[in-house]
Amino acid sequence: MATSLPQPVQRLIDTLSRLPGIGPKMAARLAIHLLSRPARERTELTDALTALSLEVHTCPRCGYLSTGELCDICTDTSRTRSICVVQGPLDVVALERSGSFRGLYHVLGGVLSPLDGIGPEELRIASLVTRVQELLADTNSGAVEVLLATNPSLEGEATALYIQRALANLENDQLSITRIARGLPVGSDIEYADPATLTRALEGRSNL
Amino acid sequence: MATSLPQPVQRLIDTLSRLPGIGPKMAARLAIHLLSRPARERTELTDALTALSLEVHTCPRCGYLSTGELCDICTDTSRTRSICVVQGPLDVVALERSGSFRGLYHVLGGVLSPLDGIGPEELRIASLVTRVQELLADTNSGAVEVLLATNPSLEGEATALYIQRALANLENDQLSITRIARGLPVGSDIEYADPATLTRALEGRSNL
Repeated sequence: MATSLPQPVQRLIDTLSRLPGIGPKMAARLAIHLLSRPARERTELTDALTALSLEVHTCPRCGYLSTGELCDICTDTSRTRSICVVQGPLDVVALERSGSFRGLYHVLGGVLSPLDGIGPEELRIASLVTRVQELLADTNSGAVEVLLATNPSLEGEATALYIQRALANLENDQLSITRIARGLPVGSDIEYADPATLTRALEGRSNL
Repeated sequence: MATSLPQPVQRLIDTLSRLPGIGPKMAARLAIHLLSRPARERTELTDALTALSLEVHTCPRCGYLSTGELCDICTDTSRTRSICVVQGPLDVVALERSGSFRGLYHVLGGVLSPLDGIGPEELRIASLVTRVQELLADTNSGAVEVLLATNPSLEGEATALYIQRALANLENDQLSITRIARGLPVGSDIEYADPATLTRALEGRSNL
């Protein structure tokens, strides 16, 4: 019988193959690379993974990542009472990097996707509604904005619509619900833009 | 200041980014994926990495991977006295899978690449020469073949040539040095083949 890879190597390949975006060939190359490096580099990776499990958890208020009880954003008292609703933690990082939003976040943990069995209960939607209710009940403060920043994809739009309806029940004139603008990305060519993006760019045109 | 990812998450991203074929964006997505999964899945990965360090080493004779003293191939007494010289362990797996070679292997650990500082001393070339010498000195047996199966790339060809010259010094009529055939891959179109491959396919034509 033909000889294959030793079992511990195959086991690592199988484990790596289960990660998103890593196929069996890439997993094999990664495993052989890790084997060829000093043991210290494998230890760095295992230590980083262990630290992740021990030190990082999801902020119970907003769903972003945290090492303390609440995350750095929820504990930042300088932020406005706008809640930007996003799909995942990396969306928070991207928006923070833009430097153009100084409010709070709410991380849904995905989008509605009935085919994948992801309904409203699988996302942090109920906790968003509660959070908005509590903010509105706090008489100390004024208007509350919920900025829906799910991806401009089919599922992202459907999720934004679902949340819009869930919040509409609150019926409070202090609450405004907004959606992040869809249009031409900066630096792009109108010539190459897809029809759906152009439609959004035209619909969203503003006065100069 | 804008909030970024918690330090343990950033640390895992940095560690993953150093792996070949994984850029910073993919590393971030992998880290967030690993965070979103049950701790058990992270433990599977750390356990597989730890097992790799503890259980797998390089076969001191041929350079392939092994969990015992010598690898499964070197200890397989049914194999012929052909030594197939390859760049890495995954080449062994591919050739074994073909089922068309039943000899031994010698894993160089790379190819000659002066620009990357990889000279003959960085590869298992001296040990190959010694191994061939010992096989030839063993009077019990007949001819020895060294089949050079480095990649048909610039570096692979140069490495094959270098080894051919190193072995030519042994001057023994029991030793034959061969090179794996270069030509059209099975299932390919002559129409789309590159000129270098066609040249090799023509040079290597055989009588029917």
